[in-house]
Amino acid sequence: MTNGDIFVGEMIGTAILILFGAGVCAAVTLRFSKARAAGWVVIAFGWGFGVLAGAYTAAPLSGGHLNPAVTFGLAVDTGVWDKVWVYLLGQITGAMIGAVLAYLVYLAQFQANVRKTGTTEGTVDEPVPTLGIFSTIPEIRNPVANLITEILATIALVLPLLALVGSNRHVEGIGIGLIEGGEGIYGSGIAILLVSFLVVGIGLSLGGPTGYAINPARDLGPRIIHAILPIPNKGTSDWGYSWIPVVGPLIGGLLGGVIYNAAF
Amino acid sequence: MTNGDIFVGEMIGTAILILFGAGVCAAVTLRFSKARAAGWVVIAFGWGFGVLAGAYTAAPLSGGHLNPAVTFGLAVDTGVWDKVWVYLLGQITGAMIGAVLAYLVYLAQFQANVRKTGTTEGTVDEPVPTLGIFSTIPEIRNPVANLITEILATIALVLPLLALVGSNRHVEGIGIGLIEGGEGIYGSGIAILLVSFLVVGIGLSLGGPTGYAINPARDLGPRIIHAILPIPNKGTSDWGYSWIPVVGPLIGGLLGGVIYNAAF
Amino acid sequence: MTNGDIFVGEMIGTAILILFGAGVCAAVTLRFSKARAAGWVVIAFGWGFGVLAGAYTAAPLSGGHLNPAVTFGLAVDTGVWDKVWVYLLGQITGAMIGAVLAYLVYLAQFQANVRKTGTTEGTVDEPVPTLGIFSTIPEIRNPVANLITEILATIALVLPLLALVGSNRHVEGIGIGLIEGGEGIYGSGIAILLVSFLVVGIGLSLGGPTGYAINPARDLGPRIIHAILPIPNKGTSDWGYSWIPVVGPLIGGLLGGVIYNAAF
Amino acid sequence: MTNGDIFVGEMIGTAILILFGAGVCAAVTLRFSKARAAGWVVIAFGWGFGVLAGAYTAAPLSGGHLNPAVTFGLAVDTGVWDKVWVYLLGQITGAMIGAVLAYLVYLAQFQANVRKTGTTEGTVDEPVPTLGIFSTIPEIRNPVANLITEILATIALVLPLLALVGSNRHVEGIGIGLIEGGEGIYGSGIAILLVSFLVVGIGLSLGGPTGYAINPARDLGPRIIHAILPIPNKGTSDWGYSWIPVVGPLIGGLLGGVIYNAAF
Repeated sequence: MTNGDIFVGEMIGTAILILFGAGVCAAVTLRFSKARAAGWVVIAFGWGFGVLAGAYTAAPLSGGHLNPAVTFGLAVDTGVWDKVWVYLLGQITGAMIGAVLAYLVYLAQFQANVRKTGTTEGTVDEPVPTLGIFSTIPEIRNPVANLITEILATIALVLPLLALVGSNRHVEGIGIGLIEGGEGIYGSGIAILLVSFLVVGIGLSLGGPTGYAINPARDLGPRIIHAILPIPNKGTSDWGYSWIPVVGPLIGGLLGGVIYNAAF
Repeated sequence: MTNGDIFVGEMIGTAILILFGAGVCAAVTLRFSKARAAGWVVIAFGWGFGVLAGAYTAAPLSGGHLNPAVTFGLAVDTGVWDKVWVYLLGQITGAMIGAVLAYLVYLAQFQANVRKTGTTEGTVDEPVPTLGIFSTIPEIRNPVANLITEILATIALVLPLLALVGSNRHVEGIGIGLIEGGEGIYGSGIAILLVSFLVVGIGLSLGGPTGYAINPARDLGPRIIHAILPIPNKGTSDWGYSWIPVVGPLIGGLLGGVIYNAAF
Repeated sequence: MTNGDIFVGEMIGTAILILFGAGVCAAVTLRFSKARAAGWVVIAFGWGFGVLAGAYTAAPLSGGHLNPAVTFGLAVDTGVWDKVWVYLLGQITGAMIGAVLAYLVYLAQFQANVRKTGTTEGTVDEPVPTLGIFSTIPEIRNPVANLITEILATIALVLPLLALVGSNRHVEGIGIGLIEGGEGIYGSGIAILLVSFLVVGIGLSLGGPTGYAINPARDLGPRIIHAILPIPNKGTSDWGYSWIPVVGPLIGGLLGGVIYNAAF
Repeated sequence: MTNGDIFVGEMIGTAILILFGAGVCAAVTLRFSKARAAGWVVIAFGWGFGVLAGAYTAAPLSGGHLNPAVTFGLAVDTGVWDKVWVYLLGQITGAMIGAVLAYLVYLAQFQANVRKTGTTEGTVDEPVPTLGIFSTIPEIRNPVANLITEILATIALVLPLLALVGSNRHVEGIGIGLIEGGEGIYGSGIAILLVSFLVVGIGLSLGGPTGYAINPARDLGPRIIHAILPIPNKGTSDWGYSWIPVVGPLIGGLLGGVIYNAAF
C-alpha cells in the first residue's frame, strides 16, 4: 500500500462511516424525518452498518480501519508505527467530509429546524440542539466516569477485533488489513461483517452513558464541522467535553493492543 | 448470459424486491395489518431482506442488479454498456409486477382501507393515502434538497457495492455479477448478504428525508401501478415529484462508478 | 440418508422451529412475559432465528426442510418424490412436539393467563386468547384473499430458496439438502443463514394480513396441540380457518418449484 | 491448548460476554442512559452480540465456550471431561470480572440511581432495583416452571450448537472448539456468528418467563458481584432463586449432549 492509497482509502471509508452515523442520528433527531424517534436499536444498527459500508469500501486500499483507536491497537500488535500518521490524517479528513455529507442529506431538515412557526407566545417551536447529530454528549457529565466508559468501550472494540483478525489470518479473504498489509487480508471475507455486528453490540450495550465515541476521528471531525456549518440555532459545540472522546478511545486502543499481545 | 436470461432474472428479482418492499410499507401503513405502526426499523430491514430475496434469486441468471443505478455504476466501472437496456427493461417490468403482487398480498387490507364505517358525523374513518406504500414521498418538498439526498444516498449504495464486488472478484462464490458476467461470480457467496445489510443501513441512516428511492425502477414502476390499480380512495400518484427518484439515483449511480474508477 | 435419519432430523428440527416460533408469540402475547408487547420486529426475528436453530440442527440428518412447502418445492425441482412422505411425517410430528415444548417453557404464564384476580365487577382480568400463540389468525377473514396471501408469501419463500440452494451447489459447505441428498450440501455453510433472513423478511413484509403460516406443518401441528392442551380459557382453535394455512402454502410450494424449473 | 490458554481464553471471553450482557441490561434499565426503555429487541441483540464479541476473542485460546452448559454438552458429546474444570474456573472468574466492568461503564448511572432529588413528599425519586442488570429474575416465581424453562432454553442452545459445530468440522475455519481441540476449528469462520444469532433467538423467543440465564456462570458470577459491590440502594441479591439458573442450564447442557449423541 502506498501512502496515497492509505490516505484515500481511510478518507473515503471514514467519510462513508460518518455519513451513515451522523445520518442515523439526524434521522431519529430531526423533525420532518421519517425515522424520527425511532429508538436506540435504529441508532446502533445505523452506526454498525456504517462500519460495514465504510470499511468494505476502504478495505482494498487501506484495510479499512476508519478509527485511530483501531490503528493504534493494530500498531501495538504489529509493532509497525511508521504509517500511523497517514491513517490518522485520512481518518480525520474523512470524518469531516462525512459530517458535511450528512448535513447535505438532511439539508431541508436542518433548515426546518429553525423555522419558528409562531413568534407570538402560544405556538413557538423550539429548535432541537444539533450537536448530538455530529458528536457525542454524555448523559451525566463526569470526566472520570465518562473517560472510563470510553476506555472500556474501546477495549471492547479493539480486543475482539484483534483476536478476530489475528485468528483469521490464515483464512482466505478476511478483511481489516494490518498496517504492513498483505494482499490476502484486504477487502473481502466476513471479518468486517463481524466487526460491524460488534459495533452494533457496543452501541446497544455500552453506548448508554456517553453515546460511544470509541473513535477519536468520529467525534472530533464532526465537531469541527458542527462549529463551522451555518446551521441556524445549532447550539453549542461543547468544546469542554471534546477531549474525552479523543483521549479515552486512544487509551482504549492502546490497552486493547497491549492486552491482546499479552494474552495471545 | 443471454439477453433472455438477463431479462428474466432482473424481472423476477426486481418483482421479489418490490413485493417485499411495497409489502413492508403496506404492513406498517394499513389498518388491519398485524405490523401496523411497527416503526422504521421494520421498514429498513424489510427492504434490506427484499434485496436479499430478490438478488439471490436473480443472481444465477443476471447477477442480481435489480436497480438501474447499480447497472449504471457497474457499466461505468466495466465500460460495458451494450446490455444495459436489457437490464433496465427487466427491472422496470419486474418493479411493476412486484407492485401488483404486493397489492394482491394486502388485497383485503386495501379494500378495507375504504370501507367507511360511519357516514354520519361522529365516526367517519379516514382512508390512509396509499402512495407511500408504492413510491417515495419527501417529508419536505424541496427539489434541490430532495435531489441531493437521493444522489448522495445512491452513491452510498453504489460505491461500497462496487468496492465490495471488485475486491471480492478473486474469492470463490461471491455474488452480484458484472454485466460482462462470468460463471464464478454469480449467485452464491456473501456479497449479496452484505449489500442487503448495506441497504438496511441506507434506510436507517439516509432514508429520513425522502424515503430513499435510490433506485429509479423501484419508484417509477410501482407509481405507474398505483396510478392504474383500482384502489378506492387511493389518493394522488404525485407525478410532480416522480422525476426526482428517477434522476437522482441515476446521477448517483454514475457518480458512484466515477468515484470508484478514480479511487480504486 | 435413511428414512430414519430423515424422520428424526425433520422431527427435531421442526420441533425446535416451533419451540422458537410459538415461543416468541407467547413472549409478546402473554402477561408476565418480559417481552410482552415487544412488537412485530421481535416476532419476525424470533421466527427467522427459529429457522436458523431448527434447520442447522436438522441439516446433517435430513437437509433441514422443516416445511412441507419446501419439501414440495424441492421435489418439483428434482423430480424425486418417493421420500416426501417421510419428510412430512417428521415435520408434522415435530411441529406438535415443538408446540408442547413452547407450552412448557411458558407454563406459569399460561396458568397465570386464567387467574382472574377479581370476580366482582370492578377488576375482572380478561384472559388473552391463546390460539395466536400456536397458529395463524387472519386480520380480515376472507378466504380468497387469505389464500392468495399465503400462496404468494410461500412462493416468496420457496423460489428464492431454490435459487439460493441451486446456485450454491458447487460451493462447498452450503446447507438445505435436496431430497436425493449428497454429502457436500448438508449442514454447513451459509445457505440456512440466508434462508433465515429470508424468513425474517417474509414476516416483516408479507405477514401483516394472515400472520404468514407459509408452512402447513407449522400451522396444523400446533393447532392440534392447542385443541388438546388443558389451557384454561384457551379460546377457540378456529378449525374453520385451518385449511387455508395448509392448502395455501402447499400450492405456493408447488408453484415456487414450477416457476424455478421454468426460469432457471 | 494448555490449561493456561484455556483459563485465560475463557476468562477474557466470558468477561466480554458479561460486559455486553450486563451492559445492555444497564442500558435499558438505568435512568440517564441513552437507551433506557429501548425494549426487548435491544436486550436480545445486546446479549447475542456479546456472545459474538466474547467467543471470537476466546476462540483462538480456548474455542470460546463461555458457558458451563456448553462445556458440559461438548464433554458429553466428545467424552472428554478432564479439562472441564479449567473451563468452568475461567468462566466463573470471567463472569465476575465482566460484571465489574459493566458496573464501571455505567458508574455515574449507578451513582445517580440513588440520588434522591426530593426527600419531601412531592418529588421523591425511587431507585431502580439493580439485580436485574446483573442476574436473572423470573416474572412468576415458580421453581418447577422456572427450572423447566431454563432446561428447555438451554437444550435449545446446546443441541443446535453441537449440530452446527459437528456438521461443520470438515469445513475450514469454523469456530467453537471442542475440548480436545485442534487447530483448524478455532477462532475463525461463521459458526460463532451463527451461535450469536441463535442466542438472539433464544432471548426473543424463550426469554420471557425467566430472562434466559441458560448459562450458570452468566448468572452466578454477576450475582456474587452484585452482592459485593457498594451500589447504594441496590436491593436484594435474591439468593433464594440463585440455584435455578445454575442447576437448570447444567441439566439442559447435559441433556443437549445426550440428545445429540443419540440422534446424530
